[in-house]
Amino acid sequence: MKYLALSVFAAVFAAIAPAQPPVSPEVHPDGRVTFRLNAPAAGAVALRFESDAPVPMKKDAPGVWSATTGALPPDIYSYSFVADGIPVLDPANPHMKYNLVSSQSEVQVPGPAALPWEINDVPRGTIHHHFYKSAIVGDHRDFFVYTPPGYDPAAKPAYPVLYLLHGFSDDATAWSTVGRANVILDNLIARGQAKPMLIVMPLGYGNWDALIGSYSGPHKPGSREDSNAKFGDSLLNEVIPQVERLYHVSSDGKARAIAGLSMGGAQSLLIGLNHPDLFAWIGAFSSGGLGHDFAADFPSLGQSANAKLRLLWIACGRDDGLIGWNQQIDAWLTDRGVSHVWHPTPGIHSFTVWRRNLAEFAPLLFREQP
Amino acid sequence: MKYLALSVFAAVFAAIAPAQPPVSPEVHPDGRVTFRLNAPAAGAVALRFESDAPVPMKKDAPGVWSATTGALPPDIYSYSFVADGIPVLDPANPHMKYNLVSSQSEVQVPGPAALPWEINDVPRGTIHHHFYKSAIVGDHRDFFVYTPPGYDPAAKPAYPVLYLLHGFSDDATAWSTVGRANVILDNLIARGQAKPMLIVMPLGYGNWDALIGSYSGPHKPGSREDSNAKFGDSLLNEVIPQVERLYHVSSDGKARAIAGLSMGGAQSLLIGLNHPDLFAWIGAFSSGGLGHDFAADFPSLGQSANAKLRLLWIACGRDDGLIGWNQQIDAWLTDRGVSHVWHPTPGIHSFTVWRRNLAEFAPLLFREQP
Repeated sequence: MKYLALSVFAAVFAAIAPAQPPVSPEVHPDGRVTFRLNAPAAGAVALRFESDAPVPMKKDAPGVWSATTGALPPDIYSYSFVADGIPVLDPANPHMKYNLVSSQSEVQVPGPAALPWEINDVPRGTIHHHFYKSAIVGDHRDFFVYTPPGYDPAAKPAYPVLYLLHGFSDDATAWSTVGRANVILDNLIARGQAKPMLIVMPLGYGNWDALIGSYSGPHKPGSREDSNAKFGDSLLNEVIPQVERLYHVSSDGKARAIAGLSMGGAQSLLIGLNHPDLFAWIGAFSSGGLGHDFAADFPSLGQSANAKLRLLWIACGRDDGLIGWNQQIDAWLTDRGVSHVWHPTPGIHSFTVWRRNLAEFAPLLFREQP
Repeated sequence: MKYLALSVFAAVFAAIAPAQPPVSPEVHPDGRVTFRLNAPAAGAVALRFESDAPVPMKKDAPGVWSATTGALPPDIYSYSFVADGIPVLDPANPHMKYNLVSSQSEVQVPGPAALPWEINDVPRGTIHHHFYKSAIVGDHRDFFVYTPPGYDPAAKPAYPVLYLLHGFSDDATAWSTVGRANVILDNLIARGQAKPMLIVMPLGYGNWDALIGSYSGPHKPGSREDSNAKFGDSLLNEVIPQVERLYHVSSDGKARAIAGLSMGGAQSLLIGLNHPDLFAWIGAFSSGGLGHDFAADFPSLGQSANAKLRLLWIACGRDDGLIGWNQQIDAWLTDRGVSHVWHPTPGIHSFTVWRRNLAEFAPLLFREQP
């Protein structure tokens, strides 16, 4: 009987499982990580780790290619293989950094419970996935809402809300999967370091041309500008009204924040700084995709904004290719007399930076000003 | 100015985008689909389409490999490439059938709006992602809850609820992503063909040994039996109590259903038939993973069950390797005098079958009996 049962199950396996992949990734106690790919027929296999240049891997006799990193600090990293020129996700690893253009595999080097993204035995919030038809963009699309642990639809006062925008080539899932936004907020709230708040994570494209261009050549001229404009329109006129109808959130701009990473950082600046009554708190992490005509993008921005803005927080990794643009907008805002925090950090254009950004930014939100 | 902006953006692209993948998949108007992989250095590339044997692809001069199917009926299909023996997801296609052992790419041949999984302009339900620590399994885990359009926490009577279980090597996301359970229910409810109900989609492993075995060799003896037992325990004593605390659902077994596919079908039979007071409605789609000692697995099952069971619905594709086991349990249930529906269908061990199963099963649920 047992034998038959195992046979049936083995048949199911054979149909779905690749042939015995090796253990990969293997995280060693000292933080080194060994990556392996079983590919006896491949002529060359390289490891792409974060944004490092590809590193050739070494083949052993049975045909398993491997590479081992140096000791890595506790963090969540992304990587992939390039086998004979083909981008390959690690077939032995179910953990994935999903992306519309280039998904990667993901590996966590575990660390102390105090790290913002480590899952702890604390009350957990919930993530709600909403679907709607956008009249503005003309498609069926979605947004995600994080409600904090113990969310109470009758709480007084109503909850503040952070609109949190993803980067180019990611989608609305990014902040709550690779970004660990829910885990970070669960931890901060449990420690009393952030106010209980809702986080809304919409889809950040106002058209699909901007994205499709990345597959097949240059962008259609104007597609990004059109995308940002339509996205802003749909955020203000479709997403926010749904959120305020479905959830117990304040509709006061002083209890509303907008922040994002890369493309989403630029959108947060565009939408936030041009709607000071709607968003008193703005965060821009490693922003990119805007031009340098700041006066055209922010036509009415000046010292008078300081009366409404509670926080304008601009961060970028010092080794990010976008550090120059961010230094320039910092200087321009200073010139204009717009109060803000300029927060350069270690790091590149990566979620290893943005998880830390969120963990630093969220505690600043919705505090009373002196 | 524009030039500078484009340069910055191009630099971001270069870091994340693979080199110009070809268009893939290309769905032709007649339902044929062309798949392409840019791999000039590969010696051999094959297409794995659904569970078909790998088909060699043909290389053109610049090094793009391609294969075109015959005309396919409208449906959602999964596929991947095998390049020099390495499993490869389509780098040009963001649509994915995520899986813990073997993720695939996904392609939809669009069809008429009446197909259960096509997104229509109908009111849409919401999917809620809950996180908790399981004392029974000893890990942090999750479950998903679909609430129907217009879900009203004060509705009378309270909503019925379907517990819907995924298959081996999938996770709790499967039914609401590749399975389109929310889209199927949105459509059925809009057409008046299914009662508004909640669907709860838990993680179906009671330990991780059963799954890890699939990577690195044979299973630890007893790991599957232990997994099914602990999963059942956590469903009954951890998931259901949370659902009944958080949502406005009936706690009457006559308003509670359990169904699943493959491993989840077997679990639905094990849990449902052994707890007739808790589940009056049971569905088992392409069940697999149990033995043939039915009397041991269902010790108290007999004709007396008919008084409590409103529906026992057992389906399997005729070309599924598991058809034999399902025919046997059909015969055994008939022998025992247990009323049930035996519903063999066209098809293999695939979500192309299970989406249809759900679309046929859900309308039967929670109807008054004559």
